[in-house]
Amino acid sequence: MDVDGKYYRTIWVNPKDKKVIQVIDQRYLPHKFVIENLKSSDDVAIAIKEMHVRGAGLIGAAAGYGMYLASLEAPKENFDSYLIQTGEKLKSTRPTAVNLAWAVERQLKNIKENIYSSQKNIFFETAEKIADEDAENCKRIGEYGVDIIKNISKKKRGKRVNILTHCNAGWLAFVDYGSALSPIYAAFNEDISVHVWVDITSPWNQGAKLTAWELEQQKVPYTVIADNMGGHLMQNNLVDMVIVGADRITRKGNVANKIGTYLKALAAKDNNIPFYVAAPLSTFDLKIKEREEIVIEKRNPKEVQYTSGLNKHGKIEKILLTLPESNALNYSFDVTPSKLITSLITERGICKAEEKSILNLF
Amino acid sequence: MDVDGKYYRTIWVNPKDKKVIQVIDQRYLPHKFVIENLKSSDDVAIAIKEMHVRGAGLIGAAAGYGMYLASLEAPKENFDSYLIQTGEKLKSTRPTAVNLAWAVERQLKNIKENIYSSQKNIFFETAEKIADEDAENCKRIGEYGVDIIKNISKKKRGKRVNILTHCNAGWLAFVDYGSALSPIYAAFNEDISVHVWVDITSPWNQGAKLTAWELEQQKVPYTVIADNMGGHLMQNNLVDMVIVGADRITRKGNVANKIGTYLKALAAKDNNIPFYVAAPLSTFDLKIKEREEIVIEKRNPKEVQYTSGLNKHGKIEKILLTLPESNALNYSFDVTPSKLITSLITERGICKAEEKSILNLF
Repeated sequence: MDVDGKYYRTIWVNPKDKKVIQVIDQRYLPHKFVIENLKSSDDVAIAIKEMHVRGAGLIGAAAGYGMYLASLEAPKENFDSYLIQTGEKLKSTRPTAVNLAWAVERQLKNIKENIYSSQKNIFFETAEKIADEDAENCKRIGEYGVDIIKNISKKKRGKRVNILTHCNAGWLAFVDYGSALSPIYAAFNEDISVHVWVDITSPWNQGAKLTAWELEQQKVPYTVIADNMGGHLMQNNLVDMVIVGADRITRKGNVANKIGTYLKALAAKDNNIPFYVAAPLSTFDLKIKEREEIVIEKRNPKEVQYTSGLNKHGKIEKILLTLPESNALNYSFDVTPSKLITSLITERGICKAEEKSILNLF
Repeated sequence: MDVDGKYYRTIWVNPKDKKVIQVIDQRYLPHKFVIENLKSSDDVAIAIKEMHVRGAGLIGAAAGYGMYLASLEAPKENFDSYLIQTGEKLKSTRPTAVNLAWAVERQLKNIKENIYSSQKNIFFETAEKIADEDAENCKRIGEYGVDIIKNISKKKRGKRVNILTHCNAGWLAFVDYGSALSPIYAAFNEDISVHVWVDITSPWNQGAKLTAWELEQQKVPYTVIADNMGGHLMQNNLVDMVIVGADRITRKGNVANKIGTYLKALAAKDNNIPFYVAAPLSTFDLKIKEREEIVIEKRNPKEVQYTSGLNKHGKIEKILLTLPESNALNYSFDVTPSKLITSLITERGICKAEEKSILNLF
């Protein structure tokens, strides 16, 4: 997508030095646009763990490139085991989003099937392929999803379609386009009147920091709201649809996504508002069925106690919200049960959140 | 309640100067304990509007004292109209909590019934009475509510009872004891093992700032969580009951409370967790029945865009979370429909959230 008129992806190989991966360091948005150089698989692991990059698709793509960097680092004498170890390290950085493990496994396939001995460039090519496919899949999600928005727009006789989203499932969460925001961008580009309610998404504030910035850049109308407000808006006919991304979707259509998604799904159900989940097939984990099988990441409680933003001097500053001695807990995801989901939007079409429909896509 | 071992109410008459009302300025908590002097009805109106004092019971008590100050300010020649005007001004500071209007009307009764001409001190006495009754009612709410906690504790064979609360309905929201927290304090004082999940309650963060501070002062175990986390905790059997306060309760038992309460009530229902609302009878508005009849306060969007806390130099600082140009919206309350409420806890006992049960209390 464009940033101040210039085209960017969220991750790319430095054109001047193929051994360096470049990413937008999302910790500084929306206040600063910072590009970070990742020069080793360790750099990539830290960037994922500390959320310089985040979002299901993007951490998958980053892991793909991380494995490519690992292939450059690996000593000849134990090349395979070095890559397998690095894969484990990358997978352990964030446990919930399955795209990460999926990308690592895809690279490891080059070892298991011994493809790399004949194709020297295979780790690089696989990383590029993961990234390109991610962008392409997100574009397709937009093409399928836009019809849903068009239909609501028609029913409302062209009046503004109000769409609520939680966290950031825009292009910053992927390589390009995004999942949940992709249909919104597609609608906006077709001159359908849309407006997005952006949940701040505390504690990390991905909505206020990233989704709002993306929409501002693309000139899509939006309003930032506290996470607490969505239910009230839904009760008062101010939301026409909800669309969110996903970090892992089980075979039965249960969806792990950013903590708080479940609460919005409950409110949508209670007010008869359609609730959509947009995600590429790489987000599906067909090995598991139930909510309880998904590992939910627990992060540092300091992310709840502290928050950061711009101080009056225009500098990014971290402030303490609670007493220093206050206990805090920081679960990063919750699971929305399939019964609350209207449909899933994928690059292969729209399906019900149920086993049969999901398996039909594969 | 005690602050560092010394007994305080949230509002009182300065013992050295009866013309000055003193309050704990809650904007500085938990980082600083500041006492503010309110010397005029204007001071009181500002303190309510700008949330130096907040919470249904406390703004009622403050309005009572505000009317007393107005009686000192009022010119003899148009005493009545000055008090009526001041009453209107005080009522307009915050539209949702009915306790405020209730307290103003109670003072105006002294004019309507011409009581004040014979009893010079009546406005002072009425203000003191409102405050004393508020404290007494909250104490009784604790006495009724503690049985609910005891029963859960028994069922769990003494294992820790996990109670989720939203916003601050502790003693800081009233004159003393609190509504939602009063049964928790009562249980804690009877050595029942309790632990409180404290919703941060963005955007103003009453949970992180006030509820956590209160519980810390009283040594009640608690953990601060983002507003987004309650649903996940409920899904995973980590919440035994929810208890919140109220700003207005209709004749049919629909409850206006801090924005986000409705989302927690939905999650409690979905997970078969009892959801209690604790409030004195002054919070009931028997003139209205339906959700739509409650005026929901819309506050400055800057409260969503900015947040404040302690910077690394130990000073309270306000930081900008969003882009400066990001639109934001700030509804302060939502309405939880009666169907989601297990029971209401009042100073006259526990009742169902339905018209007949409610009217039985009056």
